[in-house]
Amino acid sequence: MKIETKIAHFSSPLYLESGRILEPYEIAYETYGELNADKSNVILICHALSGSHHAAGTYEGERKAGWWDGLIGDGKTIDTSRYFVICTNVISSCFGSTGPMSPNYPSEDPYRLKFPVVTIKDMTRAQMQLLSSLGIYHLRAIVGGSMGGMQALQFAVDYPNLADDIISLAATYATRPWTIGFNKVAVEAIRRDPRFKHGNYSKGDFEEEGLDGLAIGRIAGHISYLSPDSMDEKFGRNYVNNDGLFELFGRYEVERYMEYNTNNFSRIFDPLSYLYIVKAINTFNLSRGYDSLHDAISRIKASVHLISFSSDYLFFPSEMEHIAKMMERNGQKHTYIEVESTYGHDAFLVELDKFKDTIKEVLKN
Amino acid sequence: MKIETKIAHFSSPLYLESGRILEPYEIAYETYGELNADKSNVILICHALSGSHHAAGTYEGERKAGWWDGLIGDGKTIDTSRYFVICTNVISSCFGSTGPMSPNYPSEDPYRLKFPVVTIKDMTRAQMQLLSSLGIYHLRAIVGGSMGGMQALQFAVDYPNLADDIISLAATYATRPWTIGFNKVAVEAIRRDPRFKHGNYSKGDFEEEGLDGLAIGRIAGHISYLSPDSMDEKFGRNYVNNDGLFELFGRYEVERYMEYNTNNFSRIFDPLSYLYIVKAINTFNLSRGYDSLHDAISRIKASVHLISFSSDYLFFPSEMEHIAKMMERNGQKHTYIEVESTYGHDAFLVELDKFKDTIKEVLKN
Repeated sequence: MKIETKIAHFSSPLYLESGRILEPYEIAYETYGELNADKSNVILICHALSGSHHAAGTYEGERKAGWWDGLIGDGKTIDTSRYFVICTNVISSCFGSTGPMSPNYPSEDPYRLKFPVVTIKDMTRAQMQLLSSLGIYHLRAIVGGSMGGMQALQFAVDYPNLADDIISLAATYATRPWTIGFNKVAVEAIRRDPRFKHGNYSKGDFEEEGLDGLAIGRIAGHISYLSPDSMDEKFGRNYVNNDGLFELFGRYEVERYMEYNTNNFSRIFDPLSYLYIVKAINTFNLSRGYDSLHDAISRIKASVHLISFSSDYLFFPSEMEHIAKMMERNGQKHTYIEVESTYGHDAFLVELDKFKDTIKEVLKN
Repeated sequence: MKIETKIAHFSSPLYLESGRILEPYEIAYETYGELNADKSNVILICHALSGSHHAAGTYEGERKAGWWDGLIGDGKTIDTSRYFVICTNVISSCFGSTGPMSPNYPSEDPYRLKFPVVTIKDMTRAQMQLLSSLGIYHLRAIVGGSMGGMQALQFAVDYPNLADDIISLAATYATRPWTIGFNKVAVEAIRRDPRFKHGNYSKGDFEEEGLDGLAIGRIAGHISYLSPDSMDEKFGRNYVNNDGLFELFGRYEVERYMEYNTNNFSRIFDPLSYLYIVKAINTFNLSRGYDSLHDAISRIKASVHLISFSSDYLFFPSEMEHIAKMMERNGQKHTYIEVESTYGHDAFLVELDKFKDTIKEVLKN
């Protein structure tokens, strides 16, 4: 499967939910498979906080394939020999789409903290512009997990005629203070990091090692992506070095995992992008702009497929079930499954075998 | 009720679990009520991570009473007109007992990172020395929540003849990686804070505002002390300022709560003490030093009363139930209740009305 990052340039304004305007802007994206003649085979994939448009395939020299490569490819669940699959990098991210470190036109200096706040709705709006520029006005399906699942639901509400099926995994209808609390660790850790310089850092300030504040915030993130049981299974109470038990900084396996993953992450992710995306997650509320959540949900015409994970400690199954019950009462087309998993929120990225069939079934119809 | 901080000085060595020795050392403590003639009315109270020996009463000019004042006092559940109540500040803490900022005798300089790692077992061992110095060899009861509940259990296992009743709330038999993960945020945030200076800070470095790293770590702590439901009730998705919705640093109520509480905390708590106490919590494992958890639990002769809270996301009810089941199989005297509460781990500090009667019942017998 050939993969390639494309950049779409837009010189028309993107009107944001805040009332502000982003202009010009760019969207980085990948496509897999071929668009058919009547353009009826398009599937849009939406990524999560730390994800990118690189959902599938492997670039030359790359060690790891795209983040949902187990799901997307020729002959796979989302079969790229049948479907034309698009995945875009959300605006405000740092993998090619316009974000806080992009030049604040006409200046060549980056926006930094002058970048406007972007919401989940704005992310979907930008993707609508890309689809339109590609001459695509209808989607077979929209699929996403976590923040990607929020986007899928936002598309369903705002553009009732856009897609036949919406598949939303490990998401919610509105971010709860529990999750905002986890994100608060990152917000404060980044803000208070002296090398963040109130947003005026230059890459050289922490090129090699990444910003500590981002790594620290990401530890809180990783807690919320796992679960007490998955941590028991994965790490137990094992020590990296048994002699370290009585050393103040002797580490448990779980601590090594946190250090390793978060240090790696802070080397590749931009701190300002992290702040902006976290803000988009915090402000996510399907009912905003409508009279009520019921009013918002009632607009949906697509078939909605909600997949939650029993051990998800970030967006609890009850939150997805809340949407399902509302659609049930409204007599709207939907399915809801709670996948049994000990992997926590991360299950949408790792327990593919447990929900592949559900997605296959949706796409078969 | 008269309260007074007393300091006990010990010139004999305290032998630590690590093999190291603390010598000399001091223990700060408060007592309430009067010791009766046959010394049969002593209750020992054990405090949690951020607590102190100041469990009850109010000092002149103090805004808030001791941390369990609702429970301890004349005519209260733990009735100081009947009982002689003792609460000590654990060693390694920063409220008067010997800790990392105490002078490293014979030098007058503080230990800092040379302070030995202290465990829950060591904390109880130090309290045994204090009791002994007061001529007290038997306790009516030992009561504690969270880290205090760990100490209560450790006393029960290590000193089977010490107390008639052990009341342990919101604790566990061994700290799970989930909790170690939360603590890891604090460990990294403190370590990486430039003003921590690898432990060589002086008070003046952050007197007014406290160490950022400690405040950031404490945010993660506060998440784990609450619960998704308690946060919904307490904060919902309310904004501090509704106009802040589209401001990057506009804050939700939950964020203001986190900032306010953690900034206050970092002003009064010592960062090194925090690291050492967190280490003690991480290394807590009732079975260490015994062949197995079963072996440890089997030693207990006291009546053990285990109180868990349904929404505790730090030490889950299943962990306390695990101890109860083991004691059940062993035919050991015990009771177990899971208190219905939405307050999360904090319930042991705030939902007193829901377990007062249980404690009263234990003390009546």
